[in-house]
Amino acid sequence: MNAGIRINGERLLGRLQQFAAIGGTAAGGVNRQALSVEDRIARAELARLAADRGFAVFQDPMANLFIRREGSSATESPFLLGSHLDSQPMGGRYDGALGTLAAFEVLETFEDAGIHTPIAVETVAWTNEEGSRFAPGVMGSMAFASGAIPTEWPGTFSADGAMLKDELAATLAALPQASRRPLGSPVSGYLELHIEQGPALEREHIPIGIVHGIQGTRWLEVVVTGQTAHAGTTQLAFRRDPLVAATESLQALYASVMPNDEQARLTVGRISVEPASINAIPGKVAFSVDLRHPNVLELDRLEAHVRSICEEKAAALGCKASVRRTFDMPPAQFAPRLLTAVEQAVTRLGIPSKPMLSGAFHDALFLARVTDAAMIFVPCRDGLSHNEAEFVEPDHSVLGAQVLLESTLGALGLR
Amino acid sequence: MNAGIRINGERLLGRLQQFAAIGGTAAGGVNRQALSVEDRIARAELARLAADRGFAVFQDPMANLFIRREGSSATESPFLLGSHLDSQPMGGRYDGALGTLAAFEVLETFEDAGIHTPIAVETVAWTNEEGSRFAPGVMGSMAFASGAIPTEWPGTFSADGAMLKDELAATLAALPQASRRPLGSPVSGYLELHIEQGPALEREHIPIGIVHGIQGTRWLEVVVTGQTAHAGTTQLAFRRDPLVAATESLQALYASVMPNDEQARLTVGRISVEPASINAIPGKVAFSVDLRHPNVLELDRLEAHVRSICEEKAAALGCKASVRRTFDMPPAQFAPRLLTAVEQAVTRLGIPSKPMLSGAFHDALFLARVTDAAMIFVPCRDGLSHNEAEFVEPDHSVLGAQVLLESTLGALGLR
Repeated sequence: MNAGIRINGERLLGRLQQFAAIGGTAAGGVNRQALSVEDRIARAELARLAADRGFAVFQDPMANLFIRREGSSATESPFLLGSHLDSQPMGGRYDGALGTLAAFEVLETFEDAGIHTPIAVETVAWTNEEGSRFAPGVMGSMAFASGAIPTEWPGTFSADGAMLKDELAATLAALPQASRRPLGSPVSGYLELHIEQGPALEREHIPIGIVHGIQGTRWLEVVVTGQTAHAGTTQLAFRRDPLVAATESLQALYASVMPNDEQARLTVGRISVEPASINAIPGKVAFSVDLRHPNVLELDRLEAHVRSICEEKAAALGCKASVRRTFDMPPAQFAPRLLTAVEQAVTRLGIPSKPMLSGAFHDALFLARVTDAAMIFVPCRDGLSHNEAEFVEPDHSVLGAQVLLESTLGALGLR
Repeated sequence: MNAGIRINGERLLGRLQQFAAIGGTAAGGVNRQALSVEDRIARAELARLAADRGFAVFQDPMANLFIRREGSSATESPFLLGSHLDSQPMGGRYDGALGTLAAFEVLETFEDAGIHTPIAVETVAWTNEEGSRFAPGVMGSMAFASGAIPTEWPGTFSADGAMLKDELAATLAALPQASRRPLGSPVSGYLELHIEQGPALEREHIPIGIVHGIQGTRWLEVVVTGQTAHAGTTQLAFRRDPLVAATESLQALYASVMPNDEQARLTVGRISVEPASINAIPGKVAFSVDLRHPNVLELDRLEAHVRSICEEKAAALGCKASVRRTFDMPPAQFAPRLLTAVEQAVTRLGIPSKPMLSGAFHDALFLARVTDAAMIFVPCRDGLSHNEAEFVEPDHSVLGAQVLLESTLGALGLR
């Protein structure tokens, strides 16, 4: 039963195009930042489509939006499929929107095919995944997982001068037809389809990535202090140049971290010097270190490694290094039960796939703390994301939605 | 005859204190930027002191200020002693002022002792040596040496919104008693006393440096272009990180340039990355390279070395380096005749000295292009200059002026 049930690819691609126009930019991208007027229009449109199909609509206090298709049991916790509808200011059409609209397409296909699921299946659009208008990102799923809105969030201002609590209230009020539900109501599982935002799948010509987990992320700020002095008059023996110490530290880190562990990532995205004068030896150098690893013990080891390398190289040159941790996001391991469901789905569908890790954050990172969660990736052109040129092959969007449907059927015991 | 003639140390130290009050800062430094009201007050005060002694005062079109004590021949070109009176915005009391006031002290001592010199001896205060209000620096001596004011200078604006030509006209007009003379009138030699602005003399407990020349300076701007990408999702094999290439280049340059040639200087004073996001691999890195060497062929070799290292390291990582020369100041060799006069002066006075090179620019660099020139250095505390805490031991100021006087006597054939 239910064999060969197919999502409606044409409908999904039409919806992607329709939502890309909400906040669409001249360059073909999308500017639909969290809790903005554009975001409210997109949410209202999804609620309207839901009502057309007879699905119930809910919002929680963080304005996370839920579309519910009932199952046989009205009391068991629902199974969630979703992603987010907000975008970067110069974002693309697929980051978030694909996962949300594919989740809704699964509900519609179930409806079209008259599928009875044992429990309710819901589409969710998490609030403010991007964090570009109000920091931090992944707000909706973070609040959902912890069951509370952190006290510092409501007073946060956006760059355009709006306060989060006002924009949140206006967003909630813009959907009066949606019922309210408390934050963090129980769920029985979560599946998220997303674009890879990296180049691996495209380069290997594999249309589906089965995401086993999300790397942990740790941000460090390294400050190396030496002594500024005249570039012309100061001999080598009298120099305490913190940029020499920083250079040696980075060279040692670049040579030792990623080449020795293919799961590790080390990136220095920011570096600055003071006084930043062409003819002055710097007095101070500051740089950021972004470390990623799926294993938290390895992250600890990497942080200690950065610390000891920087301190040692600085001391050898009469400088001083200080290393401060500015951000720490532990890794997530997705649920074997759901990963098996996705593996069996691609096998049944005969689609090439590969297991992979996500290097970027996703709402699934927080869902994994409260329920079984997993993710499915599709390739994006040149690995490009957070960019108006972001592009996913239509076939890959359709395949991704099909795998999401098939995996849901498996997870619900219908395969 | 003239044996044992001594400058008046008390008078010199008093003058240093008097001029330090013109633009004096709360922290004990001096803010007397070129062509400012404070600069005009200092110039007027020097002109007043000159008139008190019966010395003639001249200005040229660049507002270089000359105080003339006549010699036996009224037609032969004068011998110049001097430095500058302008300071950095948060400058010290000695940089420029010591050399100018010591030169004037030599004239007064000659007058007090009734010395007859075969040719006129003049004190000069060059305009805008520092270049902090109007760029470039060393304007006065540069225009003097070339005999013309570059056409682009008069329209230059200061940060405070003044135009150079207006401030120049106001400065010239503020000294109506000074006679005008053309730019670049012939001179028969130039001696400049200056603080070292480096730590070498102080560390070796040597009170006098005999400056044989000024290092050449070459500035390069290196831009390394790679590809920005997500810090979390991008594996090592897919990275084209220009900061890795820049780090490797710098490490190779730091290890190969100064350790192999004690006359060479290599400083990276500026480095910046784009897009400068903690979680993005940089797409572009730019850094400055300040190269110094007394030998112009070595400067050529060093520039070629920087070019080949940067290009090679960038290419190996799939990046591209471009190297652009932004500034080139050839080295100066001072005149053996004057260096001998200074050497004989310190020998006669029994003062320890050492030959040295200047790593910083000075007005003498340009004078050396049109006449015999040389410089005398005295130590400054901790090598500190361009700083309100700049300090010269009173004994060293007096010794420096004494060596300037004694060297002048030697250069004029009076020893």
